[in-house]
Amino acid sequence: MHKTTKAIPSIFTLANLLLGVLSLIYTQNKEWQLAAIMILGAMVLDGMDGRLARRLEATSAFGKELDSLCDLVSFGVAPALLAYSKVLYVWSSVGMIIAIVFSLCGAIRLARFNILNITGYFVGVPITAAGSLVALLILAGHYLHPYVYPVVMVVLSFLMVSNIKVPKY
Amino acid sequence: MHKTTKAIPSIFTLANLLLGVLSLIYTQNKEWQLAAIMILGAMVLDGMDGRLARRLEATSAFGKELDSLCDLVSFGVAPALLAYSKVLYVWSSVGMIIAIVFSLCGAIRLARFNILNITGYFVGVPITAAGSLVALLILAGHYLHPYVYPVVMVVLSFLMVSNIKVPKY
Repeated sequence: MHKTTKAIPSIFTLANLLLGVLSLIYTQNKEWQLAAIMILGAMVLDGMDGRLARRLEATSAFGKELDSLCDLVSFGVAPALLAYSKVLYVWSSVGMIIAIVFSLCGAIRLARFNILNITGYFVGVPITAAGSLVALLILAGHYLHPYVYPVVMVVLSFLMVSNIKVPKY
Repeated sequence: MHKTTKAIPSIFTLANLLLGVLSLIYTQNKEWQLAAIMILGAMVLDGMDGRLARRLEATSAFGKELDSLCDLVSFGVAPALLAYSKVLYVWSSVGMIIAIVFSLCGAIRLARFNILNITGYFVGVPITAAGSLVALLILAGHYLHPYVYPVVMVVLSFLMVSNIKVPKY
């Protein structure tokens, strides 16, 4: 296969990471809405790279590794930092621990799923879904009680490392 | 082998990620010194998990995956955000691009090295070395010209994805 075709899915994956890093920069500048939108943009790109790789018959071990790496940043670390800076910080160290646990559970989920080589369904709630939900909750911030964030994040952390089976669409 | 023994190296790896996330939080709070020290702490832990896994005969595919994931956060994203927030921001979008490229090159380096399965030497400068050097330069901030940061980060980005062989100690 042409080398350029083979690189296309990875370009989408790297764009996913780019949005993840941008989200962290926006979080730092206290631009919460933009930070959340970057995560949702990363979700769109993440849905495209795998599908594109299969359609172009360009799936590769490199692409799979890169995908997990970028997912941890865009859907584990970026949403955790965003939630911490926007809301969780009011509970000081407890808020910090919740943000850190969310990131750690995301990493465990990714490492575990990668070595299982399961197709057809997910084991544990995918980090993409968990991180995107946190971003959506930040966007819906005006309508929610602040306690929603720590509760949802603790539940999502648990669901990511659980053995729950989630169907793939 | 006892399950607890097998988990020990992964606990060190997760502690590495914990310090990476803490570094991002300190960066956000403009506590640059602490943010840099977290990255250097992560470097110490990163040197220990692999060695410990081999000594305990507890190496695993899970541990290897987890290690790469955590390394991208602690030595790719955390140093990039730290350098951006402390220095690179003065060059606005150019500074932002340098920070993003550093993270992307780190991800490419990790994904590529993981699938090569080479032992004995590294291909491309390891992300751990690159990220730790950035942290050290931040600590040495008072003695350095600001231009050192963008130049060093561009060179490190290139070296991470290069085919240069680096001996393992």
